[in-house]
Amino acid sequence: MKIGFIGFGEVSYVLSKLFFENGFDILTSIEGRSIKTKELVNSIEYICLLSTFEEVAEESDILISANSPNSALGIALRYGSLTNGIFLDFNNISPDTSKKIANFIGEDHFVDSAIMGKVKSKELNIYLSGKLAVKLEKFINSNLDNTSESKINTTVVSDKMGDVSSLKILRSSYTKGVSALLIETFETAKKLGLDYELWNILDLTENNLFRQSSKSRIKSSYKSSKRKYEELGEVLDFVSSVNDKKSDSLMVSATKDKFEYLKNRKKF
Amino acid sequence: MKIGFIGFGEVSYVLSKLFFENGFDILTSIEGRSIKTKELVNSIEYICLLSTFEEVAEESDILISANSPNSALGIALRYGSLTNGIFLDFNNISPDTSKKIANFIGEDHFVDSAIMGKVKSKELNIYLSGKLAVKLEKFINSNLDNTSESKINTTVVSDKMGDVSSLKILRSSYTKGVSALLIETFETAKKLGLDYELWNILDLTENNLFRQSSKSRIKSSYKSSKRKYEELGEVLDFVSSVNDKKSDSLMVSATKDKFEYLKNRKKF
Repeated sequence: MKIGFIGFGEVSYVLSKLFFENGFDILTSIEGRSIKTKELVNSIEYICLLSTFEEVAEESDILISANSPNSALGIALRYGSLTNGIFLDFNNISPDTSKKIANFIGEDHFVDSAIMGKVKSKELNIYLSGKLAVKLEKFINSNLDNTSESKINTTVVSDKMGDVSSLKILRSSYTKGVSALLIETFETAKKLGLDYELWNILDLTENNLFRQSSKSRIKSSYKSSKRKYEELGEVLDFVSSVNDKKSDSLMVSATKDKFEYLKNRKKF
Repeated sequence: MKIGFIGFGEVSYVLSKLFFENGFDILTSIEGRSIKTKELVNSIEYICLLSTFEEVAEESDILISANSPNSALGIALRYGSLTNGIFLDFNNISPDTSKKIANFIGEDHFVDSAIMGKVKSKELNIYLSGKLAVKLEKFINSNLDNTSESKINTTVVSDKMGDVSSLKILRSSYTKGVSALLIETFETAKKLGLDYELWNILDLTENNLFRQSSKSRIKSSYKSSKRKYEELGEVLDFVSSVNDKKSDSLMVSATKDKFEYLKNRKKF
């Protein structure tokens, strides 16, 4: 069973290794690639090199693009349409771009897909949605070498094109929001010389299991949105007094606005 | 050693129990309290009841107010000034209110304090700052019964009035921001019927140790703020297409604004 890669960066390298260890044949090409990539690809014994990416696309049962969001659509339109197998895009593309690709290639040769969790690991989690998601999952699983130390897990979300891309972007929205919040909070703490103790204090309560603590956080926020909104008034006054620029209190300000909205509307 | 409580709600009850188990005498009054509170207080054997809260204030080595943010200042001004010991305010008051109380009572009888982490537990974490914070910590520790099953931990942050209130409000800012973010993200996911899978996906990556994962999140956000900002453009387009109201995408919009600001400014 052949898995082809269009382009061969870090993600492709890890993926190819995992698939190879699970018994798949790995195809790619070094046509027009950088010296660095050529050296990397040439150093990997298990790779079967073809002269062009067109050939890679034509020969592959599964064709993978793991490059950059900007190049994703171009690669999909150029090579995705050449494969008789299934084209998978592992770039951070939006649901909209996924649908564009699906419209061009057709759902018989394109499955909405994403890697969730870390790529650098002994375990890979691939999420799939679309008309052929179940078929592709069966196809991958029937070819997996169960004696391999590295595991490839697949999850079919639905038969709906775009569902996996939506999940990926929601995940990105949440994690980036937390990042922005962390940055803002600890920058303010640093200005007060209190960042060391703030880490200690958050350690006391933030190390619970994610799902459990998040669900209880949501519940209590719905329940006491009015009180929390009032408290956020004080929070914002304080944080604004520490920061000169509005941009340094942006997340707190948005959080307050959010709770104002929550307290005034009906329960979701 | 006597610890007095002005008012006696749920928090006071848990605190009094912990302090009693650690060898302290517990004072309070039922003067002018609700029937419910009177019944609660009367049912607790270890409580020493005085006829007025003025007497409680005068008799106590440590006088605790654990009521509501709104009543905090009034109680502090009325009773805090009567004690010869140390007055502690365990309400969610702002650094500003702390300073008002300190100005009125004086730093010889008021220490900035907060309980961090859960109150309902066998372990209590009290943070202290102010001129007498170290002295108070020694005083508490020297009276603790080390054979007790329940533990009272004290941490002195600094000799600066307001530092503990600042920490408390920064903590509140962070946790409420996460709540708002969770609510917004999962409401959008629900509209798409993808909330079940989103929990599964976040479980894959969000269960790491808080400090370690947060620090690496901050580092990577500083490093690739430009890329993340661009990705957030797609995130916002998507989330706005799911939600009718701007208020339903408020946190994402703020996160995007935050990353725009981060990419344009010099490193913090």
